[in-house]
Amino acid sequence: MSTTPSPLVPVLAVVGIGLIGGSFAAALRDAGQVGRVLGVGRSKSSSDRAQALGLVDELVTLEEAAARSDLILLATPVGAIPDVVGRMQAHLRPDCVVSDAGSTKADVAAMARELLGERCTQFIPGHPIAGSEAVGPEAADPHLYQGRTVILTPFERTPAPARRLLTRAWEACGARVQFMDPQAHDRAMASISHVPHFLAAAYMGQVSRSANADVHLSLAGTGFRDFTRIAAGSPEVWRDIFLSNRAAVLRELDELDEAIGALRGTLEREDAQALEANLEQAALARRLWGSRSGL
Amino acid sequence: MSTTPSPLVPVLAVVGIGLIGGSFAAALRDAGQVGRVLGVGRSKSSSDRAQALGLVDELVTLEEAAARSDLILLATPVGAIPDVVGRMQAHLRPDCVVSDAGSTKADVAAMARELLGERCTQFIPGHPIAGSEAVGPEAADPHLYQGRTVILTPFERTPAPARRLLTRAWEACGARVQFMDPQAHDRAMASISHVPHFLAAAYMGQVSRSANADVHLSLAGTGFRDFTRIAAGSPEVWRDIFLSNRAAVLRELDELDEAIGALRGTLEREDAQALEANLEQAALARRLWGSRSGL
Repeated sequence: MSTTPSPLVPVLAVVGIGLIGGSFAAALRDAGQVGRVLGVGRSKSSSDRAQALGLVDELVTLEEAAARSDLILLATPVGAIPDVVGRMQAHLRPDCVVSDAGSTKADVAAMARELLGERCTQFIPGHPIAGSEAVGPEAADPHLYQGRTVILTPFERTPAPARRLLTRAWEACGARVQFMDPQAHDRAMASISHVPHFLAAAYMGQVSRSANADVHLSLAGTGFRDFTRIAAGSPEVWRDIFLSNRAAVLRELDELDEAIGALRGTLEREDAQALEANLEQAALARRLWGSRSGL
Repeated sequence: MSTTPSPLVPVLAVVGIGLIGGSFAAALRDAGQVGRVLGVGRSKSSSDRAQALGLVDELVTLEEAAARSDLILLATPVGAIPDVVGRMQAHLRPDCVVSDAGSTKADVAAMARELLGERCTQFIPGHPIAGSEAVGPEAADPHLYQGRTVILTPFERTPAPARRLLTRAWEACGARVQFMDPQAHDRAMASISHVPHFLAAAYMGQVSRSANADVHLSLAGTGFRDFTRIAAGSPEVWRDIFLSNRAAVLRELDELDEAIGALRGTLEREDAQALEANLEQAALARRLWGSRSGL
């Protein structure tokens, strides 16, 4: 609970005090960069647990959070954001900065523009690229964002002080901040996150419904384990992600369909050389990524 | 180097003394179930390293290995097996049991039948479902097969003592042995191993060649890492696996294509309910597999 004499964020509110929101509050607190933490939980039970864990100082309503905060992080599922912002908008302090943590950004930006009008520049859509399978306030971890990338997609007219406050807050959590436009963000995520999830789910469905599935699955090893791990993710969360990033995901799936067809063609024709060249390009790209990403 | 007074395998030969062959020899030795280990390396350098590491007692020719051994494990790439068996066949002791460790079995069974004729029952095709990215004699690990499954695909007329010797040898390495017919093995592997590798490679190729690949890849996280890990595997090895299991892989790819199309259809129609139901079935299947497999 140590705070500097003048913390970066005098009053922080987190809406949704689970893995994402709770970790943000905990990291800012560890860094001594927050004065008071207000919390709006999704249920009485999770709110009480968040308070008992010391993640928030005070449980408040959405209206109170809007009226009192310097910075608000919306860490609810993307589908809940319109309702939350609708209830907050009449009460927002003019210098308050609002952000979110959803996996798609064009839809959040459009929603902010629609609900907040001129004041939409107070809302900076954001996406911390971090997470885990764990959920709830108990999963909150002050180190969750250490070394991770957070993408922010401010509006053109978003004032520099607002960008600066949010950037510094994420940096205080140990993250690197990167600005992008929301469409570029969504295309990138379709390519490197949403399509892998889509494929892993389609594949896992096919394998588990095929003839002799039980025998086959009993023989699956660590390659299968890693390839399908993401398919275990929340169906509700991923349904919303696919629907809100539908156009970009479908475009990537078209490209992928061509790539699968080309690789398949080399196998159908028994063209050993082209098959190997394709596999080699993929292997080299993956090894290069591995050495660059450090993951 | 401890041996029981009467070890299960008085004389063992391993052809190819790397991860697979070296680990087999080391595990049998640790279990005190082998008398003398003969080795046939793929190169002078790897043979010398295998001997220096104590994996083999003596370096021999293929002909000597055939004439002296009770059990021979061929741990070379599948493509090298016909040549190796061709050179050994005239010298094989009549009670010697030969096996291999390749990822496909119908092709190995056909090759054994063709090269050995009546004596093909001395050859029991096998596939230890274990491995790692590491290669060479230095990667040999006596614990590699602990708790793993080894599939054997004996011919109908393979005598019980031959099946028993090989089964006991693998069990002495800590593995579970399962008998299957070679076609069933190849279909299972197409489903749970070869198709994931095919997909991961096609996807990695597509992502790395697409517009803004560098920006996209710089944002990829742990989900991407795990989904694509297998795409880094050896292009030569996987080329041979795909070609030798071509029919089964193509059949699985047909089924997968339908599953991708069905999931894609729910997204195109924005059928949230069907999309979620599909994702849920996959998530439940994956979670069930995770709890059953213990992986």
